[in-house]
Amino acid sequence: MHNPTAAMLVIGDEILSGRTQDTNSNYLARRLTESGIDLREVRVVPDDEAEIVAALNALRARYDHVFTSGGIGPTHDDITADAVARAFGVGISVREDARALLARNYRNPEVELNAARLRMARIPDGASLIDNPVSGAPGFSIGNVHVMAGVPAVFRAMVEGLVPRLKGGRPVRSVSLRVALPEGDVAGPLGEIAAANRDVSIGSYPFQRDGRFGCILVARSQDPDRLEAVAAQIRAMLTERGAEGIEEFRSE
Amino acid sequence: MHNPTAAMLVIGDEILSGRTQDTNSNYLARRLTESGIDLREVRVVPDDEAEIVAALNALRARYDHVFTSGGIGPTHDDITADAVARAFGVGISVREDARALLARNYRNPEVELNAARLRMARIPDGASLIDNPVSGAPGFSIGNVHVMAGVPAVFRAMVEGLVPRLKGGRPVRSVSLRVALPEGDVAGPLGEIAAANRDVSIGSYPFQRDGRFGCILVARSQDPDRLEAVAAQIRAMLTERGAEGIEEFRSE
Repeated sequence: MHNPTAAMLVIGDEILSGRTQDTNSNYLARRLTESGIDLREVRVVPDDEAEIVAALNALRARYDHVFTSGGIGPTHDDITADAVARAFGVGISVREDARALLARNYRNPEVELNAARLRMARIPDGASLIDNPVSGAPGFSIGNVHVMAGVPAVFRAMVEGLVPRLKGGRPVRSVSLRVALPEGDVAGPLGEIAAANRDVSIGSYPFQRDGRFGCILVARSQDPDRLEAVAAQIRAMLTERGAEGIEEFRSE
Repeated sequence: MHNPTAAMLVIGDEILSGRTQDTNSNYLARRLTESGIDLREVRVVPDDEAEIVAALNALRARYDHVFTSGGIGPTHDDITADAVARAFGVGISVREDARALLARNYRNPEVELNAARLRMARIPDGASLIDNPVSGAPGFSIGNVHVMAGVPAVFRAMVEGLVPRLKGGRPVRSVSLRVALPEGDVAGPLGEIAAANRDVSIGSYPFQRDGRFGCILVARSQDPDRLEAVAAQIRAMLTERGAEGIEEFRSE
């Protein structure tokens, strides 16, 4: 049985200009891996309605879930909700339950809930709200698209409210073996192990520390028995090549 | 005159599983912004030849430049060079100039330059090499696609060798105004300034510190005079709303 698949769409000029380092997709990636949902693609697009609509439609047709971050605040460059409504061909308007969530943030909502802030209560028709315990303004899910904030603290809180409600699969677990041998020394036999065990994904990630080369060999599988069997093969291969002090890490 | 456009393609299961936080696209984004090349899209795809080929062909048809990172090492999961050759419909083989660059890294190249390491000298037909001053194994450019390593230190060194050779445009400069007013207080008048100055891009980025809300308003333009004129309008608007201690930052 295959795990559900997912894509992430990061929306924002500030990522593409380099002003801001995106960390939301890494957070989501780790959270989905734990939940047995396979993140298969990430895209970053600018604050441009046509670009957002085109990317959303491509991704939602292809994957079981699409998660977005960014562009749902009160300012003129926050156009994600409108783009999502357009992608789905539905209307969008201020919704009372969203307005009520927003109003709770202000001592004097009649004054403070101005036209700009009310934009954050505009929700595409047919969507359900995603709770925002940090700053009130909700995200929303429509079809298989989940629309969340760009501010990392808010994005993370929304993910924690949303992801446990989604149907996951078997989590992908991993065993990592860290060794002080250069990647090129182990690449040949590692490739043979990979070719003989195609059901377990094997990656190699080189590093350099204090002028010495090393690598981290990572096996990943949904099947704990197969994972351990392949990890044992890799460990034996490393020992055979004279590796000393192999460090081992396991995902939870 | 429009600036050249670009996309970045990040290749690697380790990014999509959340094991590794991608920092290469942020580095490239900042470097391209300085050079007057507009980064318009980033995609992250897994170590899967069909996925890499499809993304490469979509991006290289649409943008002036495509920069890739990842998948050019010695191990079985390093399949980027083959995928690029397939996307361009050209052959790929070990090239003598690339082999010579690799050989310089080893005291005893006849032993150490094993079959796995020689994979790093396989270059698609018609490509030109990108120098790797850090660890020898070169990247390459073919058509409008520039193929670089995933290890950040190597990626950065390759970018520094490559980007100055590309024809850039006028750099996009920015003025950032940091103010201790919540975004929703300034969103209305900021939107009016944005609507009246469509040639200057204006973004708003909220933050929270010590329980107080603030925002950073960023104007971006290739035209220094228009940039300063619009920044002055934003500053006047903030002062009018009682903002105190506005902090101002300029890109170089």
